[in-house]
Amino acid sequence: MLSFRREFSFELTSEREEIMQMVMEKLTHEMISDEIGYYKLPTSSLAHLQRLESIDTSKYEQIVIIGVGGSSLGIKAIDSILRPFTPDAKEILFFENSDPITITETLTKIDQEKALFFIISKSGSTIETTSIFKRVISTCKLDLDGEDAKRIFAITDKGSSLSEFAQHHGIHEFNIPDNVGGRFSVLSAVGVVPLQIAGYDMQTLLGGAGSFVNSFFENQEQHLLEKACYMYENSKKQSINVLFSYADCLENLTKWYVQLWGESLGKVDVNKNRVGLTPIGIIGAVDQHSFLQLVIEGPQDKSVTFINIEDFENDLSVPDISLHSIEKTNFINNQSFNTLINAQCEATAQSVIEAGVAVDKISLDKVTPQNIGAMIVYYELLTSLIGAMLRVNTYNQPGVELGKVILYKNLQK
Amino acid sequence: MLSFRREFSFELTSEREEIMQMVMEKLTHEMISDEIGYYKLPTSSLAHLQRLESIDTSKYEQIVIIGVGGSSLGIKAIDSILRPFTPDAKEILFFENSDPITITETLTKIDQEKALFFIISKSGSTIETTSIFKRVISTCKLDLDGEDAKRIFAITDKGSSLSEFAQHHGIHEFNIPDNVGGRFSVLSAVGVVPLQIAGYDMQTLLGGAGSFVNSFFENQEQHLLEKACYMYENSKKQSINVLFSYADCLENLTKWYVQLWGESLGKVDVNKNRVGLTPIGIIGAVDQHSFLQLVIEGPQDKSVTFINIEDFENDLSVPDISLHSIEKTNFINNQSFNTLINAQCEATAQSVIEAGVAVDKISLDKVTPQNIGAMIVYYELLTSLIGAMLRVNTYNQPGVELGKVILYKNLQK
Repeated sequence: MLSFRREFSFELTSEREEIMQMVMEKLTHEMISDEIGYYKLPTSSLAHLQRLESIDTSKYEQIVIIGVGGSSLGIKAIDSILRPFTPDAKEILFFENSDPITITETLTKIDQEKALFFIISKSGSTIETTSIFKRVISTCKLDLDGEDAKRIFAITDKGSSLSEFAQHHGIHEFNIPDNVGGRFSVLSAVGVVPLQIAGYDMQTLLGGAGSFVNSFFENQEQHLLEKACYMYENSKKQSINVLFSYADCLENLTKWYVQLWGESLGKVDVNKNRVGLTPIGIIGAVDQHSFLQLVIEGPQDKSVTFINIEDFENDLSVPDISLHSIEKTNFINNQSFNTLINAQCEATAQSVIEAGVAVDKISLDKVTPQNIGAMIVYYELLTSLIGAMLRVNTYNQPGVELGKVILYKNLQK
Repeated sequence: MLSFRREFSFELTSEREEIMQMVMEKLTHEMISDEIGYYKLPTSSLAHLQRLESIDTSKYEQIVIIGVGGSSLGIKAIDSILRPFTPDAKEILFFENSDPITITETLTKIDQEKALFFIISKSGSTIETTSIFKRVISTCKLDLDGEDAKRIFAITDKGSSLSEFAQHHGIHEFNIPDNVGGRFSVLSAVGVVPLQIAGYDMQTLLGGAGSFVNSFFENQEQHLLEKACYMYENSKKQSINVLFSYADCLENLTKWYVQLWGESLGKVDVNKNRVGLTPIGIIGAVDQHSFLQLVIEGPQDKSVTFINIEDFENDLSVPDISLHSIEKTNFINNQSFNTLINAQCEATAQSVIEAGVAVDKISLDKVTPQNIGAMIVYYELLTSLIGAMLRVNTYNQPGVELGKVILYKNLQK
């Protein structure tokens, strides 16, 4: 279960109700008309799980993911969160950067006999992905026209160059719906296929996501609309949203959120104005010793969303030891670290509220696939809502094209 | 060697020269009067290296660091950067968060026979640090009154409770100078002692830092003053500085920078105004697929500093393989990943410049201890300069105290 608490004031005026109703209609239309596809993934992706039942991957023990951005961040996020609670999950290696040191290191970790390879690219020709894939083919001596084709999965758009490549070699192919953008694709084949094979319960995760989407469209997640409206109205004054997660396993979720938020909302709007909210992900309690000072005393240009996990299902505690001269820390003895980190989260939230900063808090009772599915669509829906209010195209990313053109030109020289 | 390139316009007016001269005098005074101690660490920390010659740590193969914030971020940064180039360095484990899952996992990685333990806390009673230390004592059955005392190092302020504790048990003690704040302490015993024992060449690193400090005070790093002045003048309009590092090994350096920048500059100034610059660290090429869209098309409230490594000393290349239907990516065949990532950095920088964003670029010819030492003081000096221009106390962090008080109150209940 997720629970939501708001510590900023938001009054329901008729003007605001109108905005909320308008964007609700927009999202509903996006869903019903199939203009935007992520809303239906919790149901449509079940077909992938069914298809996987007929593909025997039991003899493989390692998953190698080659993908970047929307083709890796979501997979990494779910893997990081659920792994501590899924001891039997298969190892996953990620190739996502063109950094020669990281690629070299990750190559040495591949178990050449026991690895399944996933090449993931929506467009099919992402330069990092194809370059690294060539390197992996060469280093692992993969025979694309032989048995090895059976342990390669291509996840891409129907009709893409990667799709044609897969069909040519008889490689397993899974498609991303055309109407699902890369950063909204974690619940498509992109995340579902490798994570299910790795041993995670993706059916339950999709179930949690589906329940939240349904509840949202039945108007039972009013708090989400109100939060979107608050963030939209304050998008100039409080242009930075800090996601302050109190658990190390949530760090990759914050990176997924940064892409979702930054790439969806940082746009030129219908009136040709540059708009957007800047996402920052930090981790508690460590970043109390880093970013917090700026939040408390710096410019009031930030809102902060705290995320905590009520029950880590871990009873590790501070032993009842008194250290000579450091006895004043004994008040924490015999407490669990679970209690300590949650008390730190709450105390920090209180201090941020007292500094006059807009705060809200999302609490997970436990880490379950259900809760993680719900968290993912919570952020996707929030992004769509704010994007609609800002009147931007939430689903494209025209700003990143120029760099690709320049790269191509420079390297062709 | 570091080289610096600036892509924003900055004209030298008499008013600006005056500001620059004033802050230069302030920093010079801080150094000469010993009000602020980090300027002299490149020299004074050599004494720690000398002392280490008489402590035999050769039979230990693992370093366990217990510390948070300024007591871990800098160590982690240097370790991450130099490790790929220092294959014989001892393993370092970090305990820095009160997260029960991470603590449990890290405890299982301790080699109980071969580990050296470092407890690092400037104040001596940081709650995460002492709590985890008690846990480690208990799990590893450390006998503080026996032989184990010889493999524990306490790094703390003279006269702190941790110092008294160390003296009581005859534990190795190294001190942080009073006039060196936590986030400026990486070149004090905090970083120098564990990293030297781990096998890094800290003498050369301190040498690189010392040369840069000297050159700065001899007025040979004018570009740094000009950059500080630009950032100060634009601190309202361009309140976010993005550090965009093109190498995975630099990710922890960006976390160190976030603490340094955020905690030093996010302050109430002499006129009681809330000021500050918001630091964001991202990694290329991966974050071209994430944060970049917002930089290019979103609000023009950001400046971007690119960091790249010219020579990764790694010749891994893209094999000359043509993939069926994906032939259009063949232009990158036979190129090294070193070339690819640097071409990506430059192409992205060009696209950001064309979007009208203030850009500068720091290039390391190679990863050497010398260059890393210089990079560290480069950022420390830049922080001191901007802090002086903003007229804040760069070296304190009053904003984080309230949370501690609330935590203490809540847990005492």
